[in-house]
Amino acid sequence: MKKIAIQGQEASYHHQAAQKFFGGDIEIVACQTFKDVFATLENGSSDKAIIAIENSLFGSINPVYDLLLRSKFKVVGEVYLRIEHCLIGLPNSKIEDLREVHSQAEALAQCEEFLDTKLTHVDRFEHHDTAGSVRDVKKWNDPTKAAIASERAAELYGLKVLAKNIETNHQNFTRFLVLSTDSPKVDQADKASLIMSTADSPGALYHALGVFAKADMNLSKLQSRPVVGKAWHYIFYVDVSFKDPKQLDKALADLAEQGCKTTCLGTYKSANKV
Amino acid sequence: MKKIAIQGQEASYHHQAAQKFFGGDIEIVACQTFKDVFATLENGSSDKAIIAIENSLFGSINPVYDLLLRSKFKVVGEVYLRIEHCLIGLPNSKIEDLREVHSQAEALAQCEEFLDTKLTHVDRFEHHDTAGSVRDVKKWNDPTKAAIASERAAELYGLKVLAKNIETNHQNFTRFLVLSTDSPKVDQADKASLIMSTADSPGALYHALGVFAKADMNLSKLQSRPVVGKAWHYIFYVDVSFKDPKQLDKALADLAEQGCKTTCLGTYKSANKV
Repeated sequence: MKKIAIQGQEASYHHQAAQKFFGGDIEIVACQTFKDVFATLENGSSDKAIIAIENSLFGSINPVYDLLLRSKFKVVGEVYLRIEHCLIGLPNSKIEDLREVHSQAEALAQCEEFLDTKLTHVDRFEHHDTAGSVRDVKKWNDPTKAAIASERAAELYGLKVLAKNIETNHQNFTRFLVLSTDSPKVDQADKASLIMSTADSPGALYHALGVFAKADMNLSKLQSRPVVGKAWHYIFYVDVSFKDPKQLDKALADLAEQGCKTTCLGTYKSANKV
Repeated sequence: MKKIAIQGQEASYHHQAAQKFFGGDIEIVACQTFKDVFATLENGSSDKAIIAIENSLFGSINPVYDLLLRSKFKVVGEVYLRIEHCLIGLPNSKIEDLREVHSQAEALAQCEEFLDTKLTHVDRFEHHDTAGSVRDVKKWNDPTKAAIASERAAELYGLKVLAKNIETNHQNFTRFLVLSTDSPKVDQADKASLIMSTADSPGALYHALGVFAKADMNLSKLQSRPVVGKAWHYIFYVDVSFKDPKQLDKALADLAEQGCKTTCLGTYKSANKV
């Protein structure tokens, strides 16, 4: 059985993403933090990982971008998942009796409107994992405490869904990357994730993007991140699509000619955005 | 006396930034969150605010970018501040006896190496403000509890600096924006902060950046943020410098011709990066 490292635990959104990519026959290695996921690959406890890189409301998950910069693991795939949050309590819980709601900071933020209007009487507490907050609500066995997580997490712990689809905006999707400690040959690769460091001259980014535009390679993502130790200098994370691997090779060569340093984090088959 | 809304309280880094921009003769309106700062401008309790927008290690402060999108306030200036963190305890505290350290999440993250190596025996707690965590350490009056904040915060509360410059990387600067409820004429303006929404066509960002490159306007910052409700579409926050306001007007007209929608958040005099 494949062992897949994820941030979070059973029934978390990461777990659902892992099942979507690898199918049901997997064993998860539950990690508390994103850093722990990379450490798990590093120490060989797992040779594959699934890690959230961006949410359609929250934006890029910068700590993961920063960890990718320092890691030697390859991106071998991507997964998109619709995120639907539920308010989950004990079977005898009532919304009006709640005093505490627990979840991951991002999940709390995504449900801010619901919390601000329907749960004004409730204090919010951050947890490192959505599904873990459901486990804790079960353990505490206190009907004034609820969690925000997926319906699947409610089912796993036999708890009650007090409210469904409580996210402020339903266009709530998360994109995950699949990481691998080796570099398997990926069939039908049509997308690449790159780290790009442009020359230190005016218009350098413009000229770098010109390489992709002229090669008709679509840019689906451009994320700047600071260079640590060199204030107000940036590197760029770029996702580009290509039809032929030769097109990518040519683009990387053209960028090098411009004085751009690039690292290819991996080439992989693009996934459906649903 | 000018009333300046800031996130945090007296002796916070925001307070120092406000003094650097406006001079000593100011009254601060202390706000707990970035959202509260905007609400303070909205309800007229203050007509100016100072707000952190980016840190050289942590990167862009996305919640502030998102608040700028929805606000009608003008950017009228910028301030750069060197961030030097201290570990602060009671006069009788000793590092080896500490059990708890309290500070803002970003400050704790910036001191991670120190905490991971020198304070392995200490639990970390998040606070909404660095200076506020020093005030609490004084209030608790417990020598096993310490805070991370500026030296000035230690002085204000008469506490002891247990360790200085504990940030992992000393190239630690924060850039703040000065916001105003009106649009005063700014002398010697040479920088603009824009929000840009490109046409939905391949190469659109490349062509938009071309407008600035061809006008010899330097791009000091490009930050993408998701469009809420339209998954995997982005808007771009752009900082550009110009020599003559006409140069900016022409660039905005050229962008409009390409189908780019732009909002100018403000034009202002660029500050020294120290």
